[in-house]
Amino acid sequence: MTTQTYHAPDFTAPLLARAPGAQFEPIPADGVLPEGFFSTSNLPTYVRVGERWVLPRRPRMDCVIVKRGDDLEVIEPRRLKKGDTIAMGLAEDGSQGIYVHSEGFLGGSHSANEFRFMSTEVSRERPVNYEELAARLNEEKAQGGYLIWVAGPALVHSRARGDFEWFIRNGYVQAVLAGNAVAVHDIEAAIFGTTLGMTNTGQPTDGGHGLHMRAINQVRALGSIEKAVKAGLIKSGIMHALVTNKVPYVLAGSIRDDGPLPEVYSNSLEAQDAMRELTVLATGAILVASALHAIAVGNMLPAYHTNYGGGPTPLMTICVDQTEFVVNKLKDRGTHQAYGVVTNAQDFMHVLRFYVERSSNA
Amino acid sequence: MTTQTYHAPDFTAPLLARAPGAQFEPIPADGVLPEGFFSTSNLPTYVRVGERWVLPRRPRMDCVIVKRGDDLEVIEPRRLKKGDTIAMGLAEDGSQGIYVHSEGFLGGSHSANEFRFMSTEVSRERPVNYEELAARLNEEKAQGGYLIWVAGPALVHSRARGDFEWFIRNGYVQAVLAGNAVAVHDIEAAIFGTTLGMTNTGQPTDGGHGLHMRAINQVRALGSIEKAVKAGLIKSGIMHALVTNKVPYVLAGSIRDDGPLPEVYSNSLEAQDAMRELTVLATGAILVASALHAIAVGNMLPAYHTNYGGGPTPLMTICVDQTEFVVNKLKDRGTHQAYGVVTNAQDFMHVLRFYVERSSNA
Amino acid sequence: MTTQTYHAPDFTAPLLARAPGAQFEPIPADGVLPEGFFSTSNLPTYVRVGERWVLPRRPRMDCVIVKRGDDLEVIEPRRLKKGDTIAMGLAEDGSQGIYVHSEGFLGGSHSANEFRFMSTEVSRERPVNYEELAARLNEEKAQGGYLIWVAGPALVHSRARGDFEWFIRNGYVQAVLAGNAVAVHDIEAAIFGTTLGMTNTGQPTDGGHGLHMRAINQVRALGSIEKAVKAGLIKSGIMHALVTNKVPYVLAGSIRDDGPLPEVYSNSLEAQDAMRELTVLATGAILVASALHAIAVGNMLPAYHTNYGGGPTPLMTICVDQTEFVVNKLKDRGTHQAYGVVTNAQDFMHVLRFYVERSSNA
Amino acid sequence: MTTQTYHAPDFTAPLLARAPGAQFEPIPADGVLPEGFFSTSNLPTYVRVGERWVLPRRPRMDCVIVKRGDDLEVIEPRRLKKGDTIAMGLAEDGSQGIYVHSEGFLGGSHSANEFRFMSTEVSRERPVNYEELAARLNEEKAQGGYLIWVAGPALVHSRARGDFEWFIRNGYVQAVLAGNAVAVHDIEAAIFGTTLGMTNTGQPTDGGHGLHMRAINQVRALGSIEKAVKAGLIKSGIMHALVTNKVPYVLAGSIRDDGPLPEVYSNSLEAQDAMRELTVLATGAILVASALHAIAVGNMLPAYHTNYGGGPTPLMTICVDQTEFVVNKLKDRGTHQAYGVVTNAQDFMHVLRFYVERSSNA
Repeated sequence: MTTQTYHAPDFTAPLLARAPGAQFEPIPADGVLPEGFFSTSNLPTYVRVGERWVLPRRPRMDCVIVKRGDDLEVIEPRRLKKGDTIAMGLAEDGSQGIYVHSEGFLGGSHSANEFRFMSTEVSRERPVNYEELAARLNEEKAQGGYLIWVAGPALVHSRARGDFEWFIRNGYVQAVLAGNAVAVHDIEAAIFGTTLGMTNTGQPTDGGHGLHMRAINQVRALGSIEKAVKAGLIKSGIMHALVTNKVPYVLAGSIRDDGPLPEVYSNSLEAQDAMRELTVLATGAILVASALHAIAVGNMLPAYHTNYGGGPTPLMTICVDQTEFVVNKLKDRGTHQAYGVVTNAQDFMHVLRFYVERSSNA
Repeated sequence: MTTQTYHAPDFTAPLLARAPGAQFEPIPADGVLPEGFFSTSNLPTYVRVGERWVLPRRPRMDCVIVKRGDDLEVIEPRRLKKGDTIAMGLAEDGSQGIYVHSEGFLGGSHSANEFRFMSTEVSRERPVNYEELAARLNEEKAQGGYLIWVAGPALVHSRARGDFEWFIRNGYVQAVLAGNAVAVHDIEAAIFGTTLGMTNTGQPTDGGHGLHMRAINQVRALGSIEKAVKAGLIKSGIMHALVTNKVPYVLAGSIRDDGPLPEVYSNSLEAQDAMRELTVLATGAILVASALHAIAVGNMLPAYHTNYGGGPTPLMTICVDQTEFVVNKLKDRGTHQAYGVVTNAQDFMHVLRFYVERSSNA
Repeated sequence: MTTQTYHAPDFTAPLLARAPGAQFEPIPADGVLPEGFFSTSNLPTYVRVGERWVLPRRPRMDCVIVKRGDDLEVIEPRRLKKGDTIAMGLAEDGSQGIYVHSEGFLGGSHSANEFRFMSTEVSRERPVNYEELAARLNEEKAQGGYLIWVAGPALVHSRARGDFEWFIRNGYVQAVLAGNAVAVHDIEAAIFGTTLGMTNTGQPTDGGHGLHMRAINQVRALGSIEKAVKAGLIKSGIMHALVTNKVPYVLAGSIRDDGPLPEVYSNSLEAQDAMRELTVLATGAILVASALHAIAVGNMLPAYHTNYGGGPTPLMTICVDQTEFVVNKLKDRGTHQAYGVVTNAQDFMHVLRFYVERSSNA
Repeated sequence: MTTQTYHAPDFTAPLLARAPGAQFEPIPADGVLPEGFFSTSNLPTYVRVGERWVLPRRPRMDCVIVKRGDDLEVIEPRRLKKGDTIAMGLAEDGSQGIYVHSEGFLGGSHSANEFRFMSTEVSRERPVNYEELAARLNEEKAQGGYLIWVAGPALVHSRARGDFEWFIRNGYVQAVLAGNAVAVHDIEAAIFGTTLGMTNTGQPTDGGHGLHMRAINQVRALGSIEKAVKAGLIKSGIMHALVTNKVPYVLAGSIRDDGPLPEVYSNSLEAQDAMRELTVLATGAILVASALHAIAVGNMLPAYHTNYGGGPTPLMTICVDQTEFVVNKLKDRGTHQAYGVVTNAQDFMHVLRFYVERSSNA
């Protein structure tokens, strides 16, 4: 919001001093342009006419520059008539007689051809390149990488539980960092088929609000999640897969916890220490649907690792959340390297699994 | 926020007058409860002890009620010691001596067992039942239904273009209602492989900001989208599929439009009239990633249809958006029947297609 | 998404059997209606014509019902010509010959006049009644109530710090429940004038990323926040106001914590126990800009209190967040009584303070 | 997500070649650091020890570097004991023997001291500098500037209507660009005291769903908004203020429109042309709570203006929305100069008015 001062271009600079006059061509039909027309942006744009550099009137983006005598006006193509004469060219650096002055307000570090759409890094409107994500996962697996997954409870509510289980059983998960709730929901699903009393088609059940308390109690009675798996109380799901595949996990406690489950670290500092022993091994991290845990783990992760030996390698960091906010907050807390995927946890896990399966079969 | 007055239960009502005393049992080990414990909510809860109905001290949810002499206290299970005595039962209607008084503040229309979690209708945390969505689509197709699809430009940016094309070519789309931008991005993708100058892996291209203007211009030069398909300028994508499969579409103009493309209705009232001729035929509607078009079409759609003959049938209305807000806004504008799917357009189309393919092969 | 079966109205019910024929009137000019026209909804709507109940063709909302001979059609007012004859009336219960059948799909608990806009409870589009919020706060203060405030770190970043301080110093805050980060940012602001290295006009500072670590270290060196206030290290802000006004607070630890500060409860269960000793005293709660802490505290709060003596009184619970999601999540975790305010923490605190000052002066 | 190759620093460069050895100091007490400690980031960080540059083990941010013999380890301060020896210094450019290698992955344009928090430009967590916004508005007014306001319907629903009226009547609004809905809601409020049937405290009214249709009809019967103001039908609000203060406005039609009101441009291209005649006059623009209109107007606005004579001046462009998404979308559609305010329309208008009043009195 600070008011910047405008710096006019230096028209004596060699490239501009030597620039040719801009080309103009008549349009072939009403509202139809010749191929190669110059398409405007909202930045100060100078057009060379004879020896002068002229700033056309009524500037705006997505228009053309029409010349009528000495007058240059920026106008919508649909308003032009056959025979109107417009500026031509694709270059914005003056080499074709038109110069877009990005540096005017923005300072010296900006170059020509700077104006563009879709420049925001994290956006629901950006395509997610699942082929590349899948390839990277398979590459890490092939290299003996160490992938840390961070998961929030939405992952369990939203039916991604089976897909996460698949990733664990198939060797894409070397450690899981989560909270009490993820394990509680997963175990409630294993025992009662619900999460917080909701079925996996989203229906409430009678007496449902107590089911997570009953699930916790049954595990506490047996003494540990591992014993509950061995006793056959927990027959499926994320915790079952972790225990049976001997994948290490840290369940960090929080003030929201019911129970908690026996393995949960209720002391946050002990939890941090246990998490850190896993994050120092990481060659990659996938953070799904958790602000608290994603940012906590992001704080522990370096932007690179040396776990493959040799020099630093970028540490692949993928953050999946329903909104741009969590990804940007993660970046704002220093994890600038995060690649953001703005989608629903359920769909992310489903589509990623599909691509990983396909890419590993290929 | 209005301060409600509390209405105590009528303990002379037959069910409550006849209620037995609550049962209590000792806990078997520190922090471990007997099966069948009573799990608390945050509503006024009366426990029958002898002839009295007692409101336990320190109420909160997800706890148990411990009895020490005459004293009843709500307490976290982890704080109990072996031998502490707690209230038992699953019923909240007094029949087991415990009565949860939902109507206290909420008025007469609320029943026992009212307290539950996950009651919000539209939420990213609710599972999406893709099997059911796919089954409904195949059912509509089998019955000769008329499915109207509404699409916003994010659908094209985010690589769902190919999946939408698939739905069109396979008979799941009887009409498309969209704006100029959807067609422009789709045609830019067909001609240049970009949308607003961004590749489908999310990279910018040189001179990219003008590409949509060049795409529009080429279609305007040929006179119509249909001619551009026939001339071979447009070889793939949504518009190609609509034209070659003779699926009707309405492109409604707006003040954001560049161009516009020849077929666009720039007059909003003419656009409404054209859209209405299609919405009266609808047996279902799928609204993806557009607030403006979803709400406009929602306004036109009845909550039911009689297009299968006979009496009213609910008109399946699915609204897909990245956030709960658009779905709730649609409901707030009267389209109360909408079923909300809170996810990314790209992933929705991909997963839905996968389930539809599987369900139609089954 | 479940397909409901339609139940036609019982036209033999007394109210409907006795209903008069609907009234029709000609329109006075093209596209202009007579006062008292019937405005349609999207629900099945039956119009009495002679002895018959007719469902008009082409139903949709926000339109009128035109009669041409025996034909009844739902149509946009702008499409009518002077002299066209339309249905009249405001009643939807049949008493004026028009019956809107809300129960058709929705089941027996729905009444006439059910169709309405803006029915979503939590929405950025709903007005916030600050007069009422302010009146409630002043009422609680006058009655000797116990208001618990829960705050997230965004409150400190976004310049609401001074307003929160004002509420503490003026007796509207009986306890604060927050995390390490709120105190760290507040103390960094007190010592260095920044939060996470950002000034309060949003600018970065040189070496800013280490400032919160330096702030924490200075407090740790002194031994406690209280000592840091007494030693003059902390001269302003939230923690200063809490210490100097002897308002109790609980800082609950989490795995995101740096430091932590000396008073932080790193053990989550001890934090829960300390928080609970305060929540049992609450007559109201204001939860601002924190998902974790709001839900944790929501879990502890009953929907009512008996702290004024006498029977249960609703426990005022206000949840402020930037998006509807956090408020709905709080409700989905059982805190159904929460009143949602969807706005920015900075602006909420500022506007609320303004209204509270005005209302307390009145 | 592309895998970057790491470029090690050039240790022969003069600044690094000449760098002194890093300083180390013992810590004065368990978990307490000496002032001036080096605070780590997550970027590759080289420490000069003798002639060597060493990359410490176990890198992460917000920690210190402890030296034990030849070993350098990154560790949390709380884990250190009195007497442990840690690296000192604030500089990250090697001048104090520690070099943070930002360019390692990021390429040549990054400098030392690059690592920081809170770098995202548009965020609800960034403070809004209302003093500066208010000063800019008063400055524009003093200079005879031309401020264009764009408003969405949420502004009217959420009780900001009176504040907007104030800005119009006090000379801060030179033109308004909006849609049919803004005027409809404003006129419904003027006639019936509701918007879409909801009172300004958020309560529904009986028969409320038809009120906006009745308001539209009454204006259509009189022939224009201006006539409805003169006839006394509209006695307050935004449209009343615009008409009585002769402030030009354009109401652009869309497919969502009911009615429409007489002055609405139903043809989008005519609307664009009318809007453009106002945008070319703009010296500033304030876009509140509308995605469609904000982006449409953003497309028309240059990033600068020459309306004060002389060279280009930046065109102040403020975009206010509930979420970051709309502001970022506006930027993604080319309006890169937009300053984003992430808040509720009601609160924004209220707080801005308060600051403008104060600043204009000062």
